[in-house]
Amino acid sequence: MTESVHFSRFADRHIGTSPADRQVMLKTVGVPSLEALMDGAMPEVIRSSERLALPDALSESDALNMIWGYASQNVVMRNLIGLGYHDVLMPAVIRRNILENPAWYTAYTPYQPEISQGRLEALLNFQTVISDLTGLDISGSSLLDESTAAAEAMLLARRSAKRGASDVFIVDENALPQTLSVLATRAQPVGIELHVTDTSDPANLPEAAFGILLQYPGANGVVADFSATIARAKELNAAVIMATDPLALTMLTPPGELGADIAVGSAQRFGVPLGFGGPHAGFMAVKEGLQRQLPGRLVGVSRDASQAPALRLALQTREQHIRREKATSNICTAQVLLAVIASAYAAWHGPAGLAAIARDVHAKARTLAEAFSSAGLELAGESFFDTVTVSVPGRAEGIVQRAAANGVNVRLVDVDTVGIAVNEATTDEEIGVVLEAFGLDASPKAFQEPALPSSLRRSSQYLTHPVFNAYHSETAMMRYLRRLSDFDFALDRGMIPLGSCTMKLNAAAEMEPISWPNFAAIHPLAPEEQTRGWRHLIEELEGWLAEVCGYAKVSVQPNAGSQGELAGLLAIAAWQKDRGEGHRDVCLIPASAHGTNAASAILAGMRVVVVKCDDDGNIDLVDLDAKIEKHRGDLAAIMVTYPSTHGVYEESIANVCSKIHDAGGQVYVDGANLNALLGWSKPGRFGADVSHLNLHKTFCIPHGGGGPGVGPVAVREHLAPFVPGDPMTNDAPVGAVSQARWGSAGILPIPWMYLRMMGPEGLVEATASAVLAANYVAARLRDHFPILYKGRGGLVAHECILDLRELTKHSGVTVDDVAKRLIDFGFHAPTMSFPVAGTLMMEPTESEDLDELDRFCEAMIAIRAEIDEVTQGKVAVEDSALRHAPHTAAVVTDPQWDRSYSRQKGAYPAGVSPAKYWPPVSRVDNAWGDRNLACSCPSLDAYSQ
Amino acid sequence: MTESVHFSRFADRHIGTSPADRQVMLKTVGVPSLEALMDGAMPEVIRSSERLALPDALSESDALNMIWGYASQNVVMRNLIGLGYHDVLMPAVIRRNILENPAWYTAYTPYQPEISQGRLEALLNFQTVISDLTGLDISGSSLLDESTAAAEAMLLARRSAKRGASDVFIVDENALPQTLSVLATRAQPVGIELHVTDTSDPANLPEAAFGILLQYPGANGVVADFSATIARAKELNAAVIMATDPLALTMLTPPGELGADIAVGSAQRFGVPLGFGGPHAGFMAVKEGLQRQLPGRLVGVSRDASQAPALRLALQTREQHIRREKATSNICTAQVLLAVIASAYAAWHGPAGLAAIARDVHAKARTLAEAFSSAGLELAGESFFDTVTVSVPGRAEGIVQRAAANGVNVRLVDVDTVGIAVNEATTDEEIGVVLEAFGLDASPKAFQEPALPSSLRRSSQYLTHPVFNAYHSETAMMRYLRRLSDFDFALDRGMIPLGSCTMKLNAAAEMEPISWPNFAAIHPLAPEEQTRGWRHLIEELEGWLAEVCGYAKVSVQPNAGSQGELAGLLAIAAWQKDRGEGHRDVCLIPASAHGTNAASAILAGMRVVVVKCDDDGNIDLVDLDAKIEKHRGDLAAIMVTYPSTHGVYEESIANVCSKIHDAGGQVYVDGANLNALLGWSKPGRFGADVSHLNLHKTFCIPHGGGGPGVGPVAVREHLAPFVPGDPMTNDAPVGAVSQARWGSAGILPIPWMYLRMMGPEGLVEATASAVLAANYVAARLRDHFPILYKGRGGLVAHECILDLRELTKHSGVTVDDVAKRLIDFGFHAPTMSFPVAGTLMMEPTESEDLDELDRFCEAMIAIRAEIDEVTQGKVAVEDSALRHAPHTAAVVTDPQWDRSYSRQKGAYPAGVSPAKYWPPVSRVDNAWGDRNLACSCPSLDAYSQ
Repeated sequence: MTESVHFSRFADRHIGTSPADRQVMLKTVGVPSLEALMDGAMPEVIRSSERLALPDALSESDALNMIWGYASQNVVMRNLIGLGYHDVLMPAVIRRNILENPAWYTAYTPYQPEISQGRLEALLNFQTVISDLTGLDISGSSLLDESTAAAEAMLLARRSAKRGASDVFIVDENALPQTLSVLATRAQPVGIELHVTDTSDPANLPEAAFGILLQYPGANGVVADFSATIARAKELNAAVIMATDPLALTMLTPPGELGADIAVGSAQRFGVPLGFGGPHAGFMAVKEGLQRQLPGRLVGVSRDASQAPALRLALQTREQHIRREKATSNICTAQVLLAVIASAYAAWHGPAGLAAIARDVHAKARTLAEAFSSAGLELAGESFFDTVTVSVPGRAEGIVQRAAANGVNVRLVDVDTVGIAVNEATTDEEIGVVLEAFGLDASPKAFQEPALPSSLRRSSQYLTHPVFNAYHSETAMMRYLRRLSDFDFALDRGMIPLGSCTMKLNAAAEMEPISWPNFAAIHPLAPEEQTRGWRHLIEELEGWLAEVCGYAKVSVQPNAGSQGELAGLLAIAAWQKDRGEGHRDVCLIPASAHGTNAASAILAGMRVVVVKCDDDGNIDLVDLDAKIEKHRGDLAAIMVTYPSTHGVYEESIANVCSKIHDAGGQVYVDGANLNALLGWSKPGRFGADVSHLNLHKTFCIPHGGGGPGVGPVAVREHLAPFVPGDPMTNDAPVGAVSQARWGSAGILPIPWMYLRMMGPEGLVEATASAVLAANYVAARLRDHFPILYKGRGGLVAHECILDLRELTKHSGVTVDDVAKRLIDFGFHAPTMSFPVAGTLMMEPTESEDLDELDRFCEAMIAIRAEIDEVTQGKVAVEDSALRHAPHTAAVVTDPQWDRSYSRQKGAYPAGVSPAKYWPPVSRVDNAWGDRNLACSCPSLDAYSQ
Repeated sequence: MTESVHFSRFADRHIGTSPADRQVMLKTVGVPSLEALMDGAMPEVIRSSERLALPDALSESDALNMIWGYASQNVVMRNLIGLGYHDVLMPAVIRRNILENPAWYTAYTPYQPEISQGRLEALLNFQTVISDLTGLDISGSSLLDESTAAAEAMLLARRSAKRGASDVFIVDENALPQTLSVLATRAQPVGIELHVTDTSDPANLPEAAFGILLQYPGANGVVADFSATIARAKELNAAVIMATDPLALTMLTPPGELGADIAVGSAQRFGVPLGFGGPHAGFMAVKEGLQRQLPGRLVGVSRDASQAPALRLALQTREQHIRREKATSNICTAQVLLAVIASAYAAWHGPAGLAAIARDVHAKARTLAEAFSSAGLELAGESFFDTVTVSVPGRAEGIVQRAAANGVNVRLVDVDTVGIAVNEATTDEEIGVVLEAFGLDASPKAFQEPALPSSLRRSSQYLTHPVFNAYHSETAMMRYLRRLSDFDFALDRGMIPLGSCTMKLNAAAEMEPISWPNFAAIHPLAPEEQTRGWRHLIEELEGWLAEVCGYAKVSVQPNAGSQGELAGLLAIAAWQKDRGEGHRDVCLIPASAHGTNAASAILAGMRVVVVKCDDDGNIDLVDLDAKIEKHRGDLAAIMVTYPSTHGVYEESIANVCSKIHDAGGQVYVDGANLNALLGWSKPGRFGADVSHLNLHKTFCIPHGGGGPGVGPVAVREHLAPFVPGDPMTNDAPVGAVSQARWGSAGILPIPWMYLRMMGPEGLVEATASAVLAANYVAARLRDHFPILYKGRGGLVAHECILDLRELTKHSGVTVDDVAKRLIDFGFHAPTMSFPVAGTLMMEPTESEDLDELDRFCEAMIAIRAEIDEVTQGKVAVEDSALRHAPHTAAVVTDPQWDRSYSRQKGAYPAGVSPAKYWPPVSRVDNAWGDRNLACSCPSLDAYSQ
């Protein structure tokens, strides 16, 4: 506070500690300089000494000017291309108060429900939207995109199939082409045989199958009556999956009423910008009985310690990071921010509003269809919602070009066929432009009846809950969004020291460009000449990411870390096959690995063999040698995290890489902990063949309350041919892992801005500052809590683990108690019980300043004193503030107070202050909620109980 | 909640009540329809039946597209024009978290300090910045712009001058030209004689004067050594005012150290965008002894009921709205939002950062100066900070054009002279462009010493307070801004039912365009061909405003309501003079008028004659006739507010207008209550000659926590020649009232968007909905509180007054107690004791929904019950929750609790809920603070006491 330094570089703003702070911290750690710290902590063998070949740092304003230039190279058109992507009218109140509000976008995944009630409510609303519209019992809280949701549904169907069921999965030939691509990618490694056919006729179905996917409406817009097909599928015991469109479902008989077991789709058109392909919220809903098989996250209603209703993630044991043997998929990330937006859009319009939008869209599509029919043109079908596909032999390209010349993109299906998908933004003028491109006159008509058979017209109600009928004025919506966000604790309030999650600053200048129409309103299938800015930015970013990690090629397609892992393993498998070693299918995984690793390996068709770790959390080299020896003939790969999940730089890493290579295997380095390496070490140089990077960790994409994530795959030269390709053209050997060619392109300006503003020196400084922060916390806390793992010289890398097991044994105070007590101090909890049960792992990152680090250390020391009171028998653990934490305002103002500590000690353990975060609920009872599973908006009565 | 309506128009989103809500409300009020309500409430004689000639409503997205087109017609350049306006590098963290955050911009003026601690702290920071940099004791919390601040300083100097002092005010000929214009406008009506001269030589000073204004640095950039001039001024007993630049003051000896009594200037270059001229925060600082003469608002430190430090507006009795006889000026509005931004900018850079920016700016200016000198060109002076004025006989226009062709605007002083003002955004490339335009080579050099005499080089410290040295990382700044905004209650949390202040929705779509560079980064003196979009938008807006009010011409120049009043009265005076009736100087003002009216009349050189009101708050027609008769020969005007400040439509208004006209007077209708007329009645048609409009009331410009305001003047045809003109060219008979030709142009996209999205029908519906809301509240509360004034049929207009005087007499419960108790319920207080002491005036506006109106009525009814408990003797008033309100979390969790009510009754009178606004302080002691005046950041010790 006493120094006075001019912070002229962006890096000085991104990094929380000033040079003077760092001197104080170095002294505490006991090293003389940042360089000495890194020399001490990081093994020489992995160090990379040359300057990163990135452009020099730009200032915030210069970088904004530069990226504005890129944006200007994109052309904003009206997009009637469809295929799962529609222009939207994003309500400004939602854009400003969610997408552009750090209270929403800097939040972490809601694993700590007490500080996440706002986003949990928004997600519960999302689940209610999806289950209401699909007519199914339970919806998850979003998946990565429609195509991966379809793949997950296929895998779910297989998991839930009877033993001995067929390996055949039937797919509608009218499915979205990108979904066909992703299904193909995902089916092959796990031995599923795809049978693509015209599913509208049950006669086309094979004799046996474990599931079937129907697209409703189809990619060509046709709404088929699948009742006979579904009846036949039931006879085959094949699970029925319908890929569908939530807006169409306001008008169509929902999948649940048609007998579907599962519905998937995308909520993009509920107010989420195109963003050149993503991120958007994919969804999956299932009928009762399948909920424990659902991949991804599920929000459920439970109650808190005061018996008040409280939300939290339900059935957590399905998640791979909790118990890998119960994992239902490798999915970690959801698309929370986008699901929140979609749910707010549904609340903003309400059921009548959505129905009116759908009617309007349908009427415009009918106008087109009537004009085409009147002109004698052949349509793909008479029954449709928003998309009309029309046959114009030999004329399609000319028509598409003429429409584009007037600002409207339509779909070139093939040289003889054009598709037009109408959306809420489509005007009568644009309909006129389209017809003119066909050489037809516009003649808008009013239609009484939809162009749908009466059997497929929805009669059931939806979105009847008050939340969808109360916030239709902007004032009411603004306040609702404020109220929800006030319930939550995000980075805009204080530190979120989650180990392995790298909750660093998401700078405003990084975020601003994603709202600009010239980035946000671009369709992923727009022609190349309209998307030069996007392509330039992505190409540059992929190059920079390759450079900083020492790889030859990067693909940004994987839209989550889990997908990056899968893409990396598929690349290894394809390469092994390509060189005639396709039988190699063993993937070695250290015991300490994140559960996702194993799940991904299985999905890539590999067999997982676990390698032991020693007492320090390092790979047991003896066991490694033994496993390599045993699998020398069939070794495909090893997956390691570096620095290890224990937060230390393992000395042996280069040695491990050599051993694997010698045995014919490939080395996969999980990029989760890249924040400890950037600028100092490159995985692609110290022996790794492939990595995925988590752009929502090291590269500043905000966690968004639990997504979007972005997980590019990075490979060395020999693997470059095997990165994912374009899902529309299937131009790559391994196919596509995500629905969109560039995955979540819409948020790639964030890492671009970060790298452009930090420059090579900024990244070097950030990494060292992050390592210093972790070592400072470790040094300040080591006398109060044992530090579980350390590397060379007693130093940790970018995170540290406090071992509470002994304290728990003696006091009964659990890591949960400590985590919840930290909320009273105004902190998000560290990572609990990962990688080791009974421990807390914390990663302060480089963005926290010394005041906040000290505030955290002092909170932990105060908590240690509270634990000691229990150990010393001064207070029983069940009577302690630790066990009662967190303390709501309702609890500490209750007339009844018979606790062993004062109200203010409960709520204000660090002293009374008006700057206080009040959790809206007391400790949440997870088990009760799982026993009484409820995953959509409860009736208001539930709250008044 | 049970209805289901599609809200497709923007008006449906802006208006809080749905059609079904309105049916419920009409029933309560006892009228069958909105039309019947308006027929009942509004006198026929003022009704205007034709449809407003405005364009039809556009949807939110269509309006955004259209205004984007206007923005695109502006050309973003680098601006080295200077003259009080500089390009800025607005930190993105400040743009996003203040300018674009409704928690900041929807806040009201901090008259209720308990819910305003966040913005009060930001303003205290601003005052500290200004007093530190100017070296003066006390700074106000912002004024409208530098030129009006100079005019206010001139008037302050005169007020504080000894009796019999000269009427001469000396002005530096090197003052900003727009300041010279505004001083001329303001001097003439009040009989001040301006003496413009070269003040750098004391020999030029006249023999007597009450004050002197020095520009430091001067408009031509020259930094004069004014020591001899100041010494001479002291001998003359003339107050010394220095108009200055806060960035320059990091380098220059501050005015206070030079002996100035007053400093004025603009904080624009502290991070506030140009916005084509405004709004920016003007400032004024004074030496000890003048603080009670300060115009505008002053934040001071006091303490609350718990003896904790607490901020509030100090010396409130100086404000015209409190006690008009003590008013120091007609200023009401400050520029809070802009002052907050400037203070955050100062905290972001800190003293070292500001100094480094200043050094960089100065070095670039020196580069230019050296190049010019080397080339033999003559400079205006050798001592300068950022601005170099150079003589290039006959070549100036060519040079300006060449620079502009390369994207840089420089100042065309005259055909022989060019000025270049360097700013923080100026790059070496731009310096090169400028030199190239002169035909010179760029040769940047490093300079050791500034081009300033050592006597003028600052040696004193500034911004040493921790607040300017703690938030240099973006994470820290983001959290600081969140913490401050969390202290406050703004429209994003709940209703602010302030009578006469029209706290309606500030829609996100209205706000978005003001951030766009093509609006925000345009210099007000940029050439016409670069500003076509701005001019088109302003012309259109002025036309629409004229249409909706029934006038012939509107000028948006006045940047606050007070300036609009002044401009209107000056127009009347000029017209009277023009027709040979210049002696007419009496202005009739009803007793119920807002105090500003009288203050403005005096500043316009008129004599105020008060007209009585009857018991219903209406103008006493008998007294009016008498006053007209008495002043028939010298009557200039009457100023009335319509509907009256009592919130009723007076029947007599047309009659009043006729009487005044018959006597040769003009009718000024204060537009403060236009929200009760729009679309239904036009002041320009029922008899008014001139009005000002408050765009921050009826037309949705946010209050910004107490500014910016915008107060266009609107006149009938005969007054059209007398609206304010361009301050740079002085092309109008009345001169200019604001520094910039179009005043606060930068925020005019807000009313433009509002009118474009509402359309004629939307405005009609909004007005009726606002009147309905007021009548609904009156109807629900009339059995609990007497409604003070009503019009025809027992109806009020758009606001209503609850009379608490009897209740206070019997219970001792004051309007203050009720206002503070409403905070516990989660509401901002209504207007207290205006227009009648002991009453509460509330204006719900059209934007509140029925749930919120009901929540408010129920809170008031519950408060009435609490008052009854006091009246009935169940609890003493000093022991009541009313008197102890508001309740902080610290108070209700205190171990000691011996109150007559429970903790939860105190904090949660409407029931325990996690959605609770907690005030950060208890009731603030205003008097203590005034007795112990402290108006800059206190030492941290003060807080720990």
